[in-house]
Order: sequence, then C-alpha cells, then structure tokens
Amino acid sequence: MPESSSAKVRVSVVGASGYTGADAIRLLARHPHAEIVALTANTHAGKPAAQVWPHLAGLDLPGLVKNEEVDFSGVDAVFVGLPHGAAQDVISEIMQANAELRVIDISADFRLRDAATYEQWYGRSHDAPELLAEAVYGLSEHYREEIRGARLVACPGCYPTATLLALLPLVKRGLIVLDDLIIDAKSGVSGAGRGLKLNTLFCEAGEGLSPYAVGAHRHMPEIEQELARAAGRDAAEVRVNFTPHLVPMSRGELITAHVKLAPGAQAADLEQALREAYADESFIRFAPEGLLPATQHVRGSNDCILAVREDRIAGRAIVIAAIDNLVKGSSGQAVQNFNLMFGFEETTALRQLPLFP
Amino acid sequence: MPESSSAKVRVSVVGASGYTGADAIRLLARHPHAEIVALTANTHAGKPAAQVWPHLAGLDLPGLVKNEEVDFSGVDAVFVGLPHGAAQDVISEIMQANAELRVIDISADFRLRDAATYEQWYGRSHDAPELLAEAVYGLSEHYREEIRGARLVACPGCYPTATLLALLPLVKRGLIVLDDLIIDAKSGVSGAGRGLKLNTLFCEAGEGLSPYAVGAHRHMPEIEQELARAAGRDAAEVRVNFTPHLVPMSRGELITAHVKLAPGAQAADLEQALREAYADESFIRFAPEGLLPATQHVRGSNDCILAVREDRIAGRAIVIAAIDNLVKGSSGQAVQNFNLMFGFEETTALRQLPLFP
Amino acid sequence: MPESSSAKVRVSVVGASGYTGADAIRLLARHPHAEIVALTANTHAGKPAAQVWPHLAGLDLPGLVKNEEVDFSGVDAVFVGLPHGAAQDVISEIMQANAELRVIDISADFRLRDAATYEQWYGRSHDAPELLAEAVYGLSEHYREEIRGARLVACPGCYPTATLLALLPLVKRGLIVLDDLIIDAKSGVSGAGRGLKLNTLFCEAGEGLSPYAVGAHRHMPEIEQELARAAGRDAAEVRVNFTPHLVPMSRGELITAHVKLAPGAQAADLEQALREAYADESFIRFAPEGLLPATQHVRGSNDCILAVREDRIAGRAIVIAAIDNLVKGSSGQAVQNFNLMFGFEETTALRQLPLFP
Amino acid sequence: MPESSSAKVRVSVVGASGYTGADAIRLLARHPHAEIVALTANTHAGKPAAQVWPHLAGLDLPGLVKNEEVDFSGVDAVFVGLPHGAAQDVISEIMQANAELRVIDISADFRLRDAATYEQWYGRSHDAPELLAEAVYGLSEHYREEIRGARLVACPGCYPTATLLALLPLVKRGLIVLDDLIIDAKSGVSGAGRGLKLNTLFCEAGEGLSPYAVGAHRHMPEIEQELARAAGRDAAEVRVNFTPHLVPMSRGELITAHVKLAPGAQAADLEQALREAYADESFIRFAPEGLLPATQHVRGSNDCILAVREDRIAGRAIVIAAIDNLVKGSSGQAVQNFNLMFGFEETTALRQLPLFP
Repeated sequence: MPESSSAKVRVSVVGASGYTGADAIRLLARHPHAEIVALTANTHAGKPAAQVWPHLAGLDLPGLVKNEEVDFSGVDAVFVGLPHGAAQDVISEIMQANAELRVIDISADFRLRDAATYEQWYGRSHDAPELLAEAVYGLSEHYREEIRGARLVACPGCYPTATLLALLPLVKRGLIVLDDLIIDAKSGVSGAGRGLKLNTLFCEAGEGLSPYAVGAHRHMPEIEQELARAAGRDAAEVRVNFTPHLVPMSRGELITAHVKLAPGAQAADLEQALREAYADESFIRFAPEGLLPATQHVRGSNDCILAVREDRIAGRAIVIAAIDNLVKGSSGQAVQNFNLMFGFEETTALRQLPLFP
Repeated sequence: MPESSSAKVRVSVVGASGYTGADAIRLLARHPHAEIVALTANTHAGKPAAQVWPHLAGLDLPGLVKNEEVDFSGVDAVFVGLPHGAAQDVISEIMQANAELRVIDISADFRLRDAATYEQWYGRSHDAPELLAEAVYGLSEHYREEIRGARLVACPGCYPTATLLALLPLVKRGLIVLDDLIIDAKSGVSGAGRGLKLNTLFCEAGEGLSPYAVGAHRHMPEIEQELARAAGRDAAEVRVNFTPHLVPMSRGELITAHVKLAPGAQAADLEQALREAYADESFIRFAPEGLLPATQHVRGSNDCILAVREDRIAGRAIVIAAIDNLVKGSSGQAVQNFNLMFGFEETTALRQLPLFP
Repeated sequence: MPESSSAKVRVSVVGASGYTGADAIRLLARHPHAEIVALTANTHAGKPAAQVWPHLAGLDLPGLVKNEEVDFSGVDAVFVGLPHGAAQDVISEIMQANAELRVIDISADFRLRDAATYEQWYGRSHDAPELLAEAVYGLSEHYREEIRGARLVACPGCYPTATLLALLPLVKRGLIVLDDLIIDAKSGVSGAGRGLKLNTLFCEAGEGLSPYAVGAHRHMPEIEQELARAAGRDAAEVRVNFTPHLVPMSRGELITAHVKLAPGAQAADLEQALREAYADESFIRFAPEGLLPATQHVRGSNDCILAVREDRIAGRAIVIAAIDNLVKGSSGQAVQNFNLMFGFEETTALRQLPLFP
Repeated sequence: MPESSSAKVRVSVVGASGYTGADAIRLLARHPHAEIVALTANTHAGKPAAQVWPHLAGLDLPGLVKNEEVDFSGVDAVFVGLPHGAAQDVISEIMQANAELRVIDISADFRLRDAATYEQWYGRSHDAPELLAEAVYGLSEHYREEIRGARLVACPGCYPTATLLALLPLVKRGLIVLDDLIIDAKSGVSGAGRGLKLNTLFCEAGEGLSPYAVGAHRHMPEIEQELARAAGRDAAEVRVNFTPHLVPMSRGELITAHVKLAPGAQAADLEQALREAYADESFIRFAPEGLLPATQHVRGSNDCILAVREDRIAGRAIVIAAIDNLVKGSSGQAVQNFNLMFGFEETTALRQLPLFP
C-alpha cells in the first residue's frame, strides 16, 4: 500500500462501497504517486474498509467515513462513485470548498453536456449547470488534451466507452451513416452495481440471458451526444438503437455494432481507420488474426479489444469491442484520466494484465 | 420408466451420448405412449446408459450399442442425434431396412432443402438427395400438416427455431423487409455439443462473452431458406446478418432481431401479427406486461417467449425470442414432431414447466 | 394447468413469492389431483403470478393476495413457505379456522420438537407449542406412516434432509458413533432464499466458494434432534460438526459426512445398510459403479443420490449425499408428503427427471 | 512487457500452453527483473503466443517453440509447467546442459521426496532420483532458506499449499493430532488444467458440485509427507482423509480442515500459533473479524486467507484456508520462489491485489 510521501497526490474515493469504488481503490492502492487519504460511504460509515471489502483487507486503508467528515482541503484529487443525483451535489460542494481540487467523476451526473437532456433522462433538474459546462468528457483516447487541463472530468459510462472507442474514428472519417446504428450490447452483472436488486441476485441472473431497458437506457443519449459531436451534428439528429443484455458473468462488456457503411466504404476501411486512430494507444488492441474480441480476454485490465467483420448484408459491417466494464468502462479509465490530469505516465497503475481464466 | 406395452411406439435414439440425445431420452422416458427400445452411441457402445448419463441412472434404460447392433425392423421411430454427415448415411440405411420407420432427425443433414447449398455450407456432397427431397422441415408450428404425414422430419437448428418463430409470421404478412435483417443471437454452451473442444471448457467459456462464427454459421443459410420460402422468394435473394455469441450458461438461447419495417408498418403491427399467428399454440407465449423474454424463464421447457419493442430508429423494430436450445431448439421440438407424426396430443411429454431458478 | 374438478384437492400456497413457493407451484400445477386455488404473498399482493414468476406465465394461476384475503374454509391443503416466526402464527390461525385443513409446512417453525430448543436457535419463543407437539417431522422415507395421518407436517430443512437420508439408517443400526460426526456441507445459492441480501448477489456469490454460519447454522440442532431420536438418545447428547459452504450454483446440495465407524463396522457395511434401508424407495438411488454423487445429476428432481467410500484413516468412512435443495430438500419432499397425506401414489407429480446439463 | 536489459534474469517457461504456464507469463511479464526469452509448448509449437493466449496478445512475447528448439545455455531460470512424467525428463536434460540453470518446477515430479512413493502414486518409476534428492520443496513460507540456495525447486501442489499453510504451524507446535486429520477440499475447475476432458466442459462442471478422486488424489501423499516431516515422523505414520470437490468456478481453492486438538489445546491456541507463525509474512492474512475466508477474496492474488473456528464437537476445531489455485497454489508461489532464488524482494511482481468481483 502507498507509503506516506509528501510527493504523492492525496486521493479520496467518495462512494467507496460500490464496485466502481472498490476497483478504484484496487488500482490506486498500487499507484506509486497516489496516497489514499480518505474513503467515504455514508451507509457504511464507521466500518473498517476490510469489513466492506474483505478482498482488500491486506491493505492498510483508512476506515469508511461520511462525506462531511472529510476535510477536502487536504485532498488533491477525488474519485466520485456516487449514484447520480447525489454526485452533483457533493462535487459542487467539495469543489467550492477547495478550488484546487480535481475531480474524477465516475458517476453519471456530468456526462450529458446538456442540462435539459439530463433532466429528460434522469428525471430531475441538474443542480450544478455551471459545472456541467466546465466538465470534460473523460473518454481518454479522444479527449486527452482537454482532460489534462480539466478540474472536473466526467468519465463515460461503460457502454458508451466501448461503443465510442469502436465508432468514433469511423464517424470522424465519415465511414458509417448515423441514422441506422444498431448497438447490440451485453454486460456482466457488476454493471448494475452493488445495490440490492432482485434481478442481480445470483439465482435470478445466473444461467440466463435477458435483455433489459430496451429503448430506455441512459447510456443511449450519451452515445448519441458524442457521436453527434464527432460528426459535427446536433445531438437530436442522431438516434441509435441501443439494446443491452444482462449476461451471467460478473465483469465484462461487449458491444456488437451493426453499422451501415457510407457510400463507397468497405469493412476493411473501417478496420484501417481504427488501426490508424489507435496506433499509438496503450490500451486499445485488435483481436489476434482469426479471433474475435471476448470479454474474458480483458478481465481485470484496462484493455479494449476491437475487431471489424464484413456483413453478409451488402453495405453493412460489424464492429465489435470488448472491455472490462469496471476497469476501462469505469475505474480504470478514471485512473487513466487521473494520470493525464496530474502529468503521470498514462499507463501508471494500469499495466495489470488480463486475468484469464 | 416406460412399461412394456404392445400399444407403445417403439423408439430408438441413435447418437444417444450427446446432449440432444440425453434430452430426447429425458422426455421420451416419461412419454406415456413411447418405449425406448434401443440407444446407440458408437464411441460408448457397451456401456450402461447410467455410466454415460448419471442423471438418468434411475431409469431402466437399454445399454448403449453400436448402430449396426440394432434391429431396426423392430423399431417404429428413430430420433437421430448424430453429427452431420454421419446422420444422412445412417438414416438412409435404416429407412431402407424398414420402410415403415419414421425418422425424427435432430441433426443438420436434412435441413437445407437444396443439395448444392448443403454442399457449400457443410463441405461435402449430400449422399441422400432423394431423402432430402422427401424430408419435411420440422418447425412444428409452421409445418404441422406436412409433419403429420412425413416419414422423415428434419428438426430445425436451435437458432433457426427461435429466429423463425419470431419472424415467419411477420414475413408472411409482409410487415418487415427482407434485405436488412439483423439477427444478433446468444446461446448457452450446450449448443456446441458434448464433444471435447477447447472453447467449451468451463475455464474458457465461463465468466466471459464471445462472438463466434460471425458471418459463417451454418444456421444462416437455413434461416435464409425458410424466410425466402415464406416470402415466396428465391433463397439467394435473402441475406441476413446472423451474429451468434457464446454465453456462460449451459442452456438457453435468445435472438434479438433488429428488423426494418415495411412501409406503413408499426411495431404494434408486428406484435399483433405474432399474437394472431400463435393464438392457439401451446408453446408460444408472450413476455408478461412490461417484461422481456429471458432464457432462464424457459429453461428445461418447450416454451418460446416472444416480445416486440419499438426501436429508437424510425422505421425499425426489435423482436426478441427466448427458447431452451436443447428443448424447443432441439429434442423438445423433436418430441413435438413425434407426437404429430404418431397422432398423439401435441403436448404429450412436453408439459414440464420451466425450471427456475 | 389444473382443470377445475370437484375431485381435486384444493390447494393454497402461502408465501408463494419465494423460491420454495415457486417450486411448489411448479410441481402442483402438474399434479393431476391438485388444484391451486389461492396464492398468497403479502409484499406482492395484488400482482398477477406471472409478474412475480415469469417462468410460470404460461399457467392460468390465481393472482397473489394477502393471507387474510383467502377463505381457508374452501381449501383442503396449504403449503406454507413463509419465513420462520411468521409461519407459526399463520398456521395456527388457519388451522383453527378450518379443522379439516392439512398443512405442509416448508418453513422452519415446526421442525424442532422442543420449544426451548426452538427459542434458543430462533431467538423467539414459540407461539404454538401445542401444534409443535402435534407436528410430524416430514422426512418422507423415515416417517411415512406418521405423515399419512398428520394434520401438520414439518418438512425438514434442506441440509437435514440430505444428512439424515445418508445417516439415519447407519445410526439405527449402530454402525457409526455419534460423538464424532463431521458434516461438511455445500449448497447452491437458492438455499438462501429470494430475499435481497448482499452475499447472494451474483457478483458476491459468483466465481467463489465461501463457508458460512460455521458452528451456528439452525439446521445443526435439527440434525442432532433426529440423529438422537434414531439412536434413542437425548438430543443434548449428540453434537455434530456442521460446516456449510456457499457454492456458485443456483440449485443443489451435497453433504460429505466424515463418520467414525462403530467397533467392527466397515465402510461396506454402511453401504449395505443404506441399500437395504432404501431398497424399495422411488427417490433414493446410489451413484453408478465408480461414480460419485453430484448435484448436477439431481437438478430439478426429487432424487437423492448416495455413495459410501472407505477413508484412508482407519476406522472412518465417508458418506456422500446429493439432492436438489429446492426439490427433495424442500418443495418436492413437501409434495411427496402431500401425496402421502391424501392417499395418492407417492411419486405423483414427482417423476420429472433431472435436468442435465 | 520486459525491455531487453543485460541485468535481467533470462527466463523461459516450458509448457507454456497450460493455465499455470499462462499465469506464470502473466506475472513474469510484469516482473521488473525478468525477461521472458523463450516459451515452449510442443503441441502448439510454431504458433504466436497471442493465438494460444489471446488475453496476453498485448505483450510482445516470443512465439511458442518445441523444447528442443530452445538454447538453454542462454537462459538463467526455467519455469516448468509440463505434465508429470514429462517434466522430470526435460528438467534432467536442461540441467545437464546448463549447470548454472535454476529450475522452478510447477509440475508434480519432484514434490514427493521418496522415489518409491512417487512410483506408487504416479504409476511409473522416477527417471531422475538424484535430482529428486536435490530438489527443495517450494512452500515459500516454510522452506525459505533452502529455496534461496536451491538449483531445483519443486513447487507444491495447489491443495498441499493451502493445507500446509493452514496446518504446518499447528503440527510443529504439537497442537493437533496427526491420526485423525480430515481435509475437506474444494477447488475451481482450472485446477484440472487446460486439457480436453469431459468433466471440465462448461456443461458438465457448471451449476453443479461433485466430489472426485476421493481417497485417491495424488496430493494426499504429498500432504502426508510434509506433515510427517514437520512432526518428525515417518511419512507412513501419517494418514489423512483428503476429500476434494470440484466447484463451478474457474479459480479458487478452499480447504476446510477438521482437526482433533491435542490434549489441552484450544481453538484459540491454533489461531495464535498461526498468527505468530505468519506475523511477518506478506501473503498470509487472516479473515477480518467475524468473516470467513472465501476464494473470491483472493482471486488473482498470491494471498492466502486463514481462519480458525471452534467446533461444536468437544476436542475438535476447524481451520480454513483460501487461495487462488493458479497463483499461490501454483505460478504465484513459483514466482515467489524465483524471487527468493535470485535475491529479489520476495513480493516482486506479486503485489497485484485480488480481483473482486
């Protein structure tokens, strides 16, 4: 665990009792330039971290406290893993309390750039519209420069991360059309969080596959927003089919994008565009020759595996992306952004290889 | 287990050591009008059935023998669960040996009506083209009358079963277009059979989701064949995107069909067409209000659950179907066809309810 | 689903929204002599059964109501799947309301014959001690005659069922000693019920094995009670080591009993005693030659598979039993008892074969 | 991946296509002082590592070659992950070719110190008895000094690792008796290796628990050997009950040791003895207050979690240990031994935290 050192960035994880919180701790505890100085979790306040996270019991972590018990003036960076709604209030408050503070938000509150869209999808008005305007969308590979200078980074949702990594370079080059994008998505159960819900019980989710939130998932407007932005279009002009399915595994996310090619484009052009876009990236790779991306091959890592396939339907192609929803789709990308914001080598604490089997 | 009775249909399961064979036995052993008189499995010949299938050890089953050890003149009906290629030769032989014999083929050899297409997809010429011409495609709900009179029924593949149950009524009514059909499919591991393959090991398939055989799955031409037939078109005119994924569960199959509506059609029209087509069916039902089909809700049963959803993309809709790949997608439908062929109540031995959890 | 018939036993399932309730419905809905006339579940009252149990949506079940909405005078038999504590009050009340009523209790409230022991382990006094005195312990194979005449049958816990089936015949014959019984037990997650608990979330229970309630499980005194009774000893004289583990599977339970042989006894004597005790039983079988009991070979069935093995330690042996905790360990045995109580063939509605894979 | 550096230890993994091989690569690829210079796998020779291990495709690994293609004179350390039998021949050969070479054997060939015992349990005579005499048993925490100086380290089996970590300190202090040790063990499926076997197929091992090799597992004599040695007894004097079970999870192993206390000893004495023995250890920890060891809390890490519980049977106690069978039970301990042998900090490349969920 991190030794105390004046040179280290003092980090707090707010909302540390959820799965994203735990994975943020897992990564930060081995970060050579970070020191975890506070962990908050209102419902678990007063407990040792080892009681809430027995797998991290070997670390010498601070105990869980309530948000208000933390003196954020002594903190340099905050990772926020709160539910939406709660996140914006807490972030607003602690950024006012400490103007130097930098916030890496893993929640959903600052992903939608437009307050009205936020209200429409999250069913409440946004309490911090000025921060919304300031927040940088934290898709590391595509907003690297903005992230470096940001005070507040809104890490993308897990599905948008996989989807946008697969599609943004294609949209930017005009290789696919925007009005017929079908994103058939599959996620492990950890994506639903650690809250007690019937459908995430072992006996309900196990040995079964189920679609959910078809046509109603909040990651849909987020995907549309970013695709539209990349295409230089208005968000309302882009409408995607986003169809998520719950898969009986804990970690992992795979999106199968059924795309319509722009006139003249071929599947091979898509692959080339992706390879060029990501040639210098540390975390984006392509499935080995003849193989396809699979979530078990990224488990526990910050990797994203991509592949492009021809479609039997003329004028279409299939683009596939696999990530670990808790790492590249959440806390790993958050640490990647943290590295960018504080000037560390981007892969610091993220070189852990996939755990297979 | 079946008492001996002169009134019972004497049944043999050829290729009884695979998962489809086992599920055929499981259902037939409780069929009041069937008596299992022979089980064959060349590689396991000589073993008691209980050694190969410990879960069936409570039954008084005949031991496993080689095909040639069976006197098919004393058999009324044969369920064939052999690998493709082997099936056609064995079926051809036993049907010559006993002209009264009725064959329910669970293998792939007689599903493609065109020998040339068979050769293209299965990499070998068809040895029994005359039987191919005679075979009836065993999608029970859609070919009921032909099945009743058939000597040889070719039970559909698991994916085609789910896909065609979802789409045939729509195609017949002209509600969807045929040149832009995207079938994103998900299957449990039992669909790959009991053979020893690396990708079906627990450690390879567990805790992970992987697409496979994208653009190359043999169920694709089968789906195209039947869609074309329903539409009165040539098979070559229909090209579907069929993208299967392997899901870490043993049983279950779900297809998510992303369909383009014919001009003027609405999602609601699709649902109505399906409800009307299946109003009198025993095994086809619709997801309860507000819910979606899930494979865990059909496990072990011959049921198919359907649902239709609007798509966020104008002019599109989403049709979802869930089945148990080993039951409705294989041995259950085979028994359903057996019931039709021998004049039994269609649901006989198939009223077992889904096992959940 | 059951047709209305004056000859049928009118059955109600009280506490129908738990897993045991669902499995009772699954079995009773196919029982030729039972008609489900009422389903209660206080927290889900007002909902159609299909909303709570989508896998049973194909049945024409009555909707869920509160207990007090049921007129128990029109009911012949009640299956009770309530939490302990609640069960005794409800049962007491409905048995007073209808003296003809027969109750098959799947809860824990009437398993411990001694009110003081109940209070000690369940942390509350027993409200119906007179019923406790009347209740028959529903281990079908061992209390068959008492069950036939009982008004109130207390179905054993899942662990006691497997353990007692494995050990009672050995204790009765004095083949094992009682002061050194080690029962290492393993259960699927459904044993913990459908309530929302952190440790039964997919992400908590999946891909992991954990012991729990070591030395503190309520099934321990129940096992001791019945072993003592079989041995003609006082319950306080028998103390077993009962060590349960949670296994990442939905259904299934296996107990590995490490027993010390009585002087002169051999492992082979144990097997012979079990074979003789269960020679005429429909649901108890022995693992095929060379194989061991495995939970996947009883899944969904009312079967119990037994095996005995020599121990490398002289004077010891290993006895293994596998059951489906929701069937033989709960609702299946309840239906078996129902059959005994109402004079039906004992296997009625229970001949469903194990579902494998 | 490892940059070329003259200061680095040049490492080869022989038998790199099994799960232990893969996990050795995973750890070594991030070892700052190791460079992987060769990977062998006879059946996969000629393939790029990424084809055999897609999860490691992001590394710049050498391709797989046959053993005889490697020039072992340019290698400093070899990790051997071959099947037993093959390992001894290869190791013998390469140690003759390069006298400086140091071998970390993950196979079973040098674990049993006695050639006759080896022959009895492995069904073949040992070809390298002189190396057997030289080999050091690689239970890092207990043979640290011998390992530092060893040319050949025989890493313990996964079950012996967990068992001995739990019991050796107790045996050394005489707190438990040796003639009544019951080790009820549970392992994930990866323990059975990557070979194609029926019982490790997803559909066979999934959703089920099964005991196996009861009274016949080769880890039994290994455990007895080390317990006897610690007690200063002859191996033939110690006979344990070792009862393994296959659990539907990929990684993880838990042993539940039911021990008889030496006269005067208490469960609390056992815990104290373990705490004292491991007070300075990096990888051994105790379950947090009130919790029990669980395999999901060590997944992917080199940790071992211990706990002691009182037994309801007087004079007995329960000792529980959880490890990841592929890490502490195999490749992790191998790297730990490598660190000892080459004078690196013992935790180098092993500080990766458990991956949960």
